[in-house]
Amino acid sequence: MDFNTEYNKRLTLINKHIELFFENECKNLENFVTEPVIYSVLNGGKRIRGILTLEVAKMLGGDEEKALEFATAIEFIQAYSLVHDDLPCMDDDDYRRGKLSCHKKFGEAKGVLCGDSLLNLSYEVMLKAILTGGSGEKKAAYEIARRAGIFGMIKGQLIDIDLMSKKNISLDDVEKLIEHKTTALISAAALAGAHIANAGDKDIENIKNYAYHLGTAFQIRDDFEDEQEDKAREDAQKTPNFINILGKEKAIEKLVFHRNSAEDILKKYRNSEFLMSMNSFLFGAF
Amino acid sequence: MDFNTEYNKRLTLINKHIELFFENECKNLENFVTEPVIYSVLNGGKRIRGILTLEVAKMLGGDEEKALEFATAIEFIQAYSLVHDDLPCMDDDDYRRGKLSCHKKFGEAKGVLCGDSLLNLSYEVMLKAILTGGSGEKKAAYEIARRAGIFGMIKGQLIDIDLMSKKNISLDDVEKLIEHKTTALISAAALAGAHIANAGDKDIENIKNYAYHLGTAFQIRDDFEDEQEDKAREDAQKTPNFINILGKEKAIEKLVFHRNSAEDILKKYRNSEFLMSMNSFLFGAF
Repeated sequence: MDFNTEYNKRLTLINKHIELFFENECKNLENFVTEPVIYSVLNGGKRIRGILTLEVAKMLGGDEEKALEFATAIEFIQAYSLVHDDLPCMDDDDYRRGKLSCHKKFGEAKGVLCGDSLLNLSYEVMLKAILTGGSGEKKAAYEIARRAGIFGMIKGQLIDIDLMSKKNISLDDVEKLIEHKTTALISAAALAGAHIANAGDKDIENIKNYAYHLGTAFQIRDDFEDEQEDKAREDAQKTPNFINILGKEKAIEKLVFHRNSAEDILKKYRNSEFLMSMNSFLFGAF
Repeated sequence: MDFNTEYNKRLTLINKHIELFFENECKNLENFVTEPVIYSVLNGGKRIRGILTLEVAKMLGGDEEKALEFATAIEFIQAYSLVHDDLPCMDDDDYRRGKLSCHKKFGEAKGVLCGDSLLNLSYEVMLKAILTGGSGEKKAAYEIARRAGIFGMIKGQLIDIDLMSKKNISLDDVEKLIEHKTTALISAAALAGAHIANAGDKDIENIKNYAYHLGTAFQIRDDFEDEQEDKAREDAQKTPNFINILGKEKAIEKLVFHRNSAEDILKKYRNSEFLMSMNSFLFGAF
């Protein structure tokens, strides 16, 4: 299978679905309401999380159309978190993927409100699906909600802030940070897919472990990419990540361990070809 | 009936329910995660919206325990909107009900994240109720989601920003602003209560109209209170509200019209004693 072709098919599918959402559901809204939201969510994102929802659902026999709604919802949450992360009081980033960040383009107040809009829209999409759906949709939405908030991703963002003022950061600190900041939403995406497919306890357990390994490997990969870009920056060594806490060699070992563990779980499933290829594509260089 | 006694009973009921939520559901979370959230939501709010959910549900024969979950959810949304409204890039308020605003107390980054946490928590509470609930819970949650986001309250906040740079503000502008910024969440609260009680189309229509009249009267009352406080401020006359656009006399006439219209709808229901008293209490001075 040609991974890039297959990946781009799914990327296009999700982006089209998001575009159609705005065209159909938001057609009566004024431009000043939708423009910042559309600008921030249709901005060249890789859609890893949305694709994960889609592919886990399909692997476990779930319906693609239903999964697409939740892929959209999870991408709205991912987009909101980036818009708020870019704010001056947070990471203060003027650019996101080569374009002006939301608050730089529309002003800070609209940046805050755009993030709020996207988070709320995510639940609008999920709750609409729940109105006509079954127990899978309910569980998928609850799973996402729990892992996006103070038990998951937002807790990770708060840990991040607290670690800034901590002098001696431990391996335990970094594990906890990554588990919440990154892995929580990746797990939410994968588990939502599993619930859409009405997965049983054993499959849920497998997917939870798969997502944990995928998320951890994904973060280390991200840290290596950031390291390349940040070489010139003095504070790069202070970032709380596995490279700085373990050293490069051990960080690569850890990435390989989690990559392989994720693969071992996927091997249990017959229809895992795409997710297997994604694993190789993401982590093949290590 | 002694309105103040009855009102305080309900206020205490909702506050206790919110306190118990944090004690039971969040007991394993670290203090740095829950402190800003608890600080911002248990801060002496009047709980008008939560009480509305509770009382509309009870008036239509709904279950109080179920309604309490949604009263909590709506108060989380109200609290999040105030935390974000207070941010420097929004209204830049250092104080909220005599206490430091969230971002002044915990820093701006935690202010943004606290608002995000509260919005997300609202959906965690509602989705948990949906897991074991019926169609009433689903409809209540969707109603709240739609009216909290870009079709409702957030659209109102965006209109507010846009009106700041507009020179000639029309009555239509003010109507649209209030309909979204204030009435949307009040309608959400009332309609959630109606759905919890599995209300039929006719009752839903009545409650929608009741909430529209209540919300509009409530906003004009609020404008009169603000006017008293803001007398010294030069920009008070520029605020886009019914007093400035209609003049005091016509604004009072409008308040009285909406107060009476709300009352006319409540008269159709036998168990509307509390909501009737609330109407008199809120607007009796006009």
